[in-house]
Amino acid sequence: MKDSAVLLIDCPDRKGLVARVSSLLYERGANILHADQHQDHDLGLFFMRVEWALDGPAASSATPQAGPIPGQASGLEGFDLEGFKTAFAPLAAELGMRWQLSSSGRLPRVALFCSQYLHCMADLLHRWRTGELMCEIPLILSNHRDVEKLAGFYGIPFEYVEATADRRGEAEARQLELLSSCGVDLVVLARYMQVLSPAFVARYPAAIINVHHSFLPAFTGAKPYHAAHARGVKLIGATSHYVTDLLDDGPIIEQDVARISHRDQVEDLVARGRDLERIVLSRAVRWHLDRRILCYGNKTVVFD
Amino acid sequence: MKDSAVLLIDCPDRKGLVARVSSLLYERGANILHADQHQDHDLGLFFMRVEWALDGPAASSATPQAGPIPGQASGLEGFDLEGFKTAFAPLAAELGMRWQLSSSGRLPRVALFCSQYLHCMADLLHRWRTGELMCEIPLILSNHRDVEKLAGFYGIPFEYVEATADRRGEAEARQLELLSSCGVDLVVLARYMQVLSPAFVARYPAAIINVHHSFLPAFTGAKPYHAAHARGVKLIGATSHYVTDLLDDGPIIEQDVARISHRDQVEDLVARGRDLERIVLSRAVRWHLDRRILCYGNKTVVFD
Amino acid sequence: MKDSAVLLIDCPDRKGLVARVSSLLYERGANILHADQHQDHDLGLFFMRVEWALDGPAASSATPQAGPIPGQASGLEGFDLEGFKTAFAPLAAELGMRWQLSSSGRLPRVALFCSQYLHCMADLLHRWRTGELMCEIPLILSNHRDVEKLAGFYGIPFEYVEATADRRGEAEARQLELLSSCGVDLVVLARYMQVLSPAFVARYPAAIINVHHSFLPAFTGAKPYHAAHARGVKLIGATSHYVTDLLDDGPIIEQDVARISHRDQVEDLVARGRDLERIVLSRAVRWHLDRRILCYGNKTVVFD
Amino acid sequence: MKDSAVLLIDCPDRKGLVARVSSLLYERGANILHADQHQDHDLGLFFMRVEWALDGPAASSATPQAGPIPGQASGLEGFDLEGFKTAFAPLAAELGMRWQLSSSGRLPRVALFCSQYLHCMADLLHRWRTGELMCEIPLILSNHRDVEKLAGFYGIPFEYVEATADRRGEAEARQLELLSSCGVDLVVLARYMQVLSPAFVARYPAAIINVHHSFLPAFTGAKPYHAAHARGVKLIGATSHYVTDLLDDGPIIEQDVARISHRDQVEDLVARGRDLERIVLSRAVRWHLDRRILCYGNKTVVFD
Repeated sequence: MKDSAVLLIDCPDRKGLVARVSSLLYERGANILHADQHQDHDLGLFFMRVEWALDGPAASSATPQAGPIPGQASGLEGFDLEGFKTAFAPLAAELGMRWQLSSSGRLPRVALFCSQYLHCMADLLHRWRTGELMCEIPLILSNHRDVEKLAGFYGIPFEYVEATADRRGEAEARQLELLSSCGVDLVVLARYMQVLSPAFVARYPAAIINVHHSFLPAFTGAKPYHAAHARGVKLIGATSHYVTDLLDDGPIIEQDVARISHRDQVEDLVARGRDLERIVLSRAVRWHLDRRILCYGNKTVVFD
Repeated sequence: MKDSAVLLIDCPDRKGLVARVSSLLYERGANILHADQHQDHDLGLFFMRVEWALDGPAASSATPQAGPIPGQASGLEGFDLEGFKTAFAPLAAELGMRWQLSSSGRLPRVALFCSQYLHCMADLLHRWRTGELMCEIPLILSNHRDVEKLAGFYGIPFEYVEATADRRGEAEARQLELLSSCGVDLVVLARYMQVLSPAFVARYPAAIINVHHSFLPAFTGAKPYHAAHARGVKLIGATSHYVTDLLDDGPIIEQDVARISHRDQVEDLVARGRDLERIVLSRAVRWHLDRRILCYGNKTVVFD
Repeated sequence: MKDSAVLLIDCPDRKGLVARVSSLLYERGANILHADQHQDHDLGLFFMRVEWALDGPAASSATPQAGPIPGQASGLEGFDLEGFKTAFAPLAAELGMRWQLSSSGRLPRVALFCSQYLHCMADLLHRWRTGELMCEIPLILSNHRDVEKLAGFYGIPFEYVEATADRRGEAEARQLELLSSCGVDLVVLARYMQVLSPAFVARYPAAIINVHHSFLPAFTGAKPYHAAHARGVKLIGATSHYVTDLLDDGPIIEQDVARISHRDQVEDLVARGRDLERIVLSRAVRWHLDRRILCYGNKTVVFD
Repeated sequence: MKDSAVLLIDCPDRKGLVARVSSLLYERGANILHADQHQDHDLGLFFMRVEWALDGPAASSATPQAGPIPGQASGLEGFDLEGFKTAFAPLAAELGMRWQLSSSGRLPRVALFCSQYLHCMADLLHRWRTGELMCEIPLILSNHRDVEKLAGFYGIPFEYVEATADRRGEAEARQLELLSSCGVDLVVLARYMQVLSPAFVARYPAAIINVHHSFLPAFTGAKPYHAAHARGVKLIGATSHYVTDLLDDGPIIEQDVARISHRDQVEDLVARGRDLERIVLSRAVRWHLDRRILCYGNKTVVFD
């Protein structure tokens, strides 16, 4: 994994956006690793993700160039990220861009919440240990104690915060305090069974990822596997999404389904669903950490 | 395709059901080709499908038997279906069974309804021509004229019946007349865009198959692809189901999904959805014709 | 999970097999929970799986029966498994059946082998802990030390056995000794990267499950993800199978695939493949433990 | 479907490629509808697809621009495609680009070949009729007469050319003559069961698309469903690919799979496979017609 920077942009669509951004990067000697754009023609919006190397020349520039390019920094000495930022800001302002610039030098800090079901948590922690999720995990938080040993095994601080519907305010105050003191950028609800208040959600816009155990928008709310069984569907699903004020209604990041049959009882759906939940939640977290996701309206652009 | 009989049973579950049915078939010399059962333990229901050969000995009886079995008809002379029926009726009555006995000797008669979109119709007709759907098709009916040439190509009588919401009664009277005069057993709504009245539906219980262009129960009603696009889902679906009084609410027979991305506009969803619709509708029709489906409550058992 | 017995049968196909087996179970008062059959018409073979309750009456017999049935044991006192065995043996002999009778009273004993990649191991152990895999795991064995801590976390004895191609005999002798002393019924190769000798395999016929990281029979042997990338396939796969003398050639139990694109490098294939490997291996192990699998020739019947 | 132009590029990777191409398009007033790039870092190659409007301003430029841009043609009068070509050629030469520029004004001309199985043919023709495949079809050619009526229904000239292994030369001479006189750009082998000679293939490089009824590279050659059944796989597949000199070895465009079980006989595999074949072949043809595919080595880039 080489050092790289990622620029995420969204703005009103107009001619020349790609030309102007890519020309600026070119002038400053960026060795682009990946670039992707998207236009929403109906809404007149433009989205872009560019990733480029921060250190020496990459394989992609192995081909010798025809000659020196005016104003280009030498790739050998590393890319001047601060300089780029200074040069990019006025362009972004002119074109009405919202933008985020991040570099692999600083790992995002993630807090994992769960209740008593640990399959998503165990899955995320194993993926993190093996390097699949590029982040730090300074905090595991639960309203149950079941996860404590697992947290210990991975050497991650565990905090128990009692959470009941009638004392939610108190619980959330404590949770926010912990998130703040740990410098958390992203909250992952790995089957955390409590509803968060709008006030809590407002503190982490597009930065709380939840997994819902149905194919949204079908079967919102509690006990979706029971509802799916009662309806007699032939496929069950799971959905990862950003949390907003409305329950199970935020921008969808990923969904997947599995085939079931009349032989499957509710407990079979629950068991098969666990595999779906692991997959869709871990993908959402990885894509978020890799800065592949842009939210707009109630939707996501997920650059692949 | 050899000649065979299919027996479909559902009844309250109790001990010995398989033993008693299979013993009767054994005594009468049936050469069983496929057998499958299902129990719904919650509801205490039992379901069974048995298929056996009607003509001479099949490969599966190639193994010589130990000796003559009392009361067994000789496989060489064909199975005595009427005799079996007479013998089975009292057993079925004793055990509270609902049952259907059908044989490949009589092909089911199917009417196909459509409106202006012909992809499901074209698909069903091609499958029928190549022998994938074992039925007769005495009637294609539409509230548009687009399908007329296609019907002609396959040599199937076409009937145009105007259908608008405010003159539904008249239209349905004419439709029922046509269905009756054609001796239709099954009505397939191959993207027929009119809602049928409860009175119409009552005439063909569990014998009208519809395709809905969403993953039910998500996005019922009109314009489901628009709704899916607006919600920002990452998979779209299609559902085939038996028609009941409630719109898009009948027992689901088959569902399938396809992955989409932020790049897909509504028209892309419509195009990809056509493939799903063809698949789920044609499977439902084939399974119905092969007597693989039993309805109970608002669900289906689909024997594979 | 209620106490139950499972009978697995395979034999030459002939008339009356279902009738005779189900009648015997009926006479002895078995409360059947699931039953499934399969016939291979080409080979003239018959396969059957029956599962019945060992304790008191289940929901499925809640419906009161018409009267006492001669010779039927009372369900209230539990099923007489030994008595059934004694009664079934002569029938099985007469009909040329191979059969296995097992009961949930005795959990199968499983040894897990791995090398340095731990994703399948971590997945199996978590599933086992949460009750998804009904077995005992008396042994984790590896030719690397990476798994030792994980084994410790789950409280499972770990054994390190050095294994290199040139000293395979020695290693296998030690492995077989450990398997024997632990009373192991099933060996699971959870990404164990050493080839087992025919002598080793012969000791555990249809009782060693491996996961191969390709869609067999494509890309047998080493580095299948590299081969898949070089060939430019659009889907990658994983396969779980029983181990036989021929490498990557045993009866296939389960396969699954994932879509990839030109954007995916070998390391992306490896990462996506890990999810497939976990899924297909864990399913194979669960099905084996649930006695759902029968091998014949180089194939499997997997009852669902 | 609005008028648009598509530029496909591949060349050695180097810095500034996106900047230089997009700047040229910007200068000439192109209203870009879609743009996508790909880099193969291992091989040091760069791939790009850009699509822009040829007529008046599109929705994406609805946002008023800040002011006139020097050298920009007015979108209202249409894009000057010839002028762009003249301006782009020297840039392409300097950067070592291979490129193809096409516009929606000229529809590609496609010949469809088949033998006796017509499911892919019927599917392609229906999609073409409904506007899903943007092309002209001046020729249907077969070594059987089964397709003749279907060709007639769609009003497409049919040519029968006898083709046997021992008189292949003669047949191909006739086929090439027909292709040439019809001005064919793309040949689609819709289950055409004859092997084409290297000489034939050389006449249409990356312009002959075939469907093979297996998941390549598994089961190359004849009777792949028989081979899949014999091997006991749990999924079957189909593959569309460009034809090269080596049988079933050309660059893969699309693959898909379907789940099967021990219950499925060879004829079931054949039936299920037909759905896969239709899907993967029609997608390949559509993507080719939409200029989404670039071949390199034995692989494809398929822009989505």
